[in-house]
Amino acid sequence: MVEIVRPTLLLNRRICEGNIRKMFSKAQKHHVQLIPHFKTHQSSKVGEWFMEAGVTAITVTSVKMAEYFAQNGWKGITIAFPVNILEVKEINSLATQVALKIFINSKATTMSLKEHIKADIKFYIEIDTGDGRSGVAADDYVQISDILESTRNSRLQFYGFYSHPGQTYAATSPEEVKEISAGVLNKLKALKRHFKEEFPELKIGLGDTPSCSLAEDFEGVDSIHPGNFVYYDLVQQNIGVNSFEEIAISLAVPVVAVHPERNEAIVHSGWVHQGKDSLNSTAGNVHYGLVVELQQNGWSAPIPGAKVIKLSQEHGVLSLPEEMIHRLKIGDIVGILPVHACATAVMMGEIYTLEGERLEMMPR
Amino acid sequence: MVEIVRPTLLLNRRICEGNIRKMFSKAQKHHVQLIPHFKTHQSSKVGEWFMEAGVTAITVTSVKMAEYFAQNGWKGITIAFPVNILEVKEINSLATQVALKIFINSKATTMSLKEHIKADIKFYIEIDTGDGRSGVAADDYVQISDILESTRNSRLQFYGFYSHPGQTYAATSPEEVKEISAGVLNKLKALKRHFKEEFPELKIGLGDTPSCSLAEDFEGVDSIHPGNFVYYDLVQQNIGVNSFEEIAISLAVPVVAVHPERNEAIVHSGWVHQGKDSLNSTAGNVHYGLVVELQQNGWSAPIPGAKVIKLSQEHGVLSLPEEMIHRLKIGDIVGILPVHACATAVMMGEIYTLEGERLEMMPR
Repeated sequence: MVEIVRPTLLLNRRICEGNIRKMFSKAQKHHVQLIPHFKTHQSSKVGEWFMEAGVTAITVTSVKMAEYFAQNGWKGITIAFPVNILEVKEINSLATQVALKIFINSKATTMSLKEHIKADIKFYIEIDTGDGRSGVAADDYVQISDILESTRNSRLQFYGFYSHPGQTYAATSPEEVKEISAGVLNKLKALKRHFKEEFPELKIGLGDTPSCSLAEDFEGVDSIHPGNFVYYDLVQQNIGVNSFEEIAISLAVPVVAVHPERNEAIVHSGWVHQGKDSLNSTAGNVHYGLVVELQQNGWSAPIPGAKVIKLSQEHGVLSLPEEMIHRLKIGDIVGILPVHACATAVMMGEIYTLEGERLEMMPR
Repeated sequence: MVEIVRPTLLLNRRICEGNIRKMFSKAQKHHVQLIPHFKTHQSSKVGEWFMEAGVTAITVTSVKMAEYFAQNGWKGITIAFPVNILEVKEINSLATQVALKIFINSKATTMSLKEHIKADIKFYIEIDTGDGRSGVAADDYVQISDILESTRNSRLQFYGFYSHPGQTYAATSPEEVKEISAGVLNKLKALKRHFKEEFPELKIGLGDTPSCSLAEDFEGVDSIHPGNFVYYDLVQQNIGVNSFEEIAISLAVPVVAVHPERNEAIVHSGWVHQGKDSLNSTAGNVHYGLVVELQQNGWSAPIPGAKVIKLSQEHGVLSLPEEMIHRLKIGDIVGILPVHACATAVMMGEIYTLEGERLEMMPR
């Protein structure tokens, strides 16, 4: 185990590679391509493990992240974010280095891009299948046709439809996730049917970790783009997407105060380390992470009743069972399972394997 | 104005220096020393503006931050966080470079530190004056005496009591802040009276921005340690601590989609840029920032009814008044006033003045 003095994000490589392998096998079984989203780990090294598993193309969430992974050897990159026309210079540059796919969600975007792109670039139209965040509504064939029409005779080449049904994160059971997924799939299949005559090659990409982890029907889907599954976390565990044993990261933090009179301890673990996400597993019972014991080769299951109940910039307040509070000492290191792995990874900016190898992440 | 292509944190230097000057003058008027907390800006350059205003010593929230500002010329540094005994090596090193003050909140901490420190180090005992986060309860004279007893004949030198009454952040009016402050002050004065016979030189340090901004009575206080006031933000504005005109930073972000059908626009501004803090100014009306118009020399007042209503990792969803939605175009840049300036600054990791100067921040 790496020596820990300050808050340190630990990665169990065995669990992480297991998560990657499982998703890769599932994709193969369902004859869809796994084009994993790298926004969760943002690490060139973790990226290599995907390459070793057989992954050949990736998804990212910004031009900056595309640049980082292009520099680290990836040749197929989808930027799953409505294209920012102000970044056309960077997009032109990327398009000369990698097989790039972008999101075009409006005619206005096309009109601006057409004038400025200097290479052939494939694009998805992002489809809003019920999340209500971004993309064209799944039944708005008029707008979709408008966008397609506006790209005719340009270097923008229609590739297909992509949807990130973020509404699965609000599900409270695996059954609910599957139900949402089925509805999403129906919308995407209807789109495919409608447009395939004109675009026989059009592809369907599907985005979220809950659906990709739980659904068993991917009919009509060509690629899946989950991200969070590389580490999983308590949000997903709470929905029923993963078990505690599949969570690949834990934040190791030093105990700086013990308050037996209120069964609390203070750790150096604020929102600058964990991120600010919380879970409210039972009403009025908000927490910012569950406490585990660090062990030689990883960490324990969550200690019943041990959780982070308050966060400020650098302080984390743990509520602990009586048994634990009496054996805990300042200078001890405890582990915290993340509520939201993407946030904890971004905040920490670097990760250490249990063996002590430091894994670089994308610079801020 | 600096050219903006990607999310960019803008700093209005005139407002920022005004905030610094006002707090410095207030401290002088009340005969207390301003030892500002640098956790909000974390920038060596902004630190220089404090130096120019007459500030000679600072407060930080971690050993790492102390190291950063020591490297940038600061000679008096208080680490306002319960000391992590695992960092004793780093503390010893810092103590040879700067006049260091640390927090000791337990006898257990003393017992460990005593054995390992290699220089004389001054310490505060942190006092919990009602926040319930960290420190010794203000009326627990027994524990305080225990800590003091345990440091006798050691290189740990008692300096005084420090309190960060974070409960002022839950206040809903300036009057409530002042009321809380008055109660806090009474507790600290009682402590001073009790211990001053034995420690006639003992000092009282007081921490939070709401109190330091609003209170007009600092009797018995020797130093004030506010941090957030350097930029201020919507949390503080909501309490009544500052006006909109005193907010010194704004996040400039590109518009990537406009949805007139629902009076919404999407900007490249997720929690990786803003942080995840929200305000619920009126019930059921959560927002993650108010929208302003960028202007030649800064930005406008908040546009009535324009706010960030949803945040994901990179997407921000704006709810906008009809008038604005119809003139907004993709590729436009809008400004967002931060809910929590500390979080937005940490997330962005660098700041640009309106004149285009890049201000470095502490590396992650």
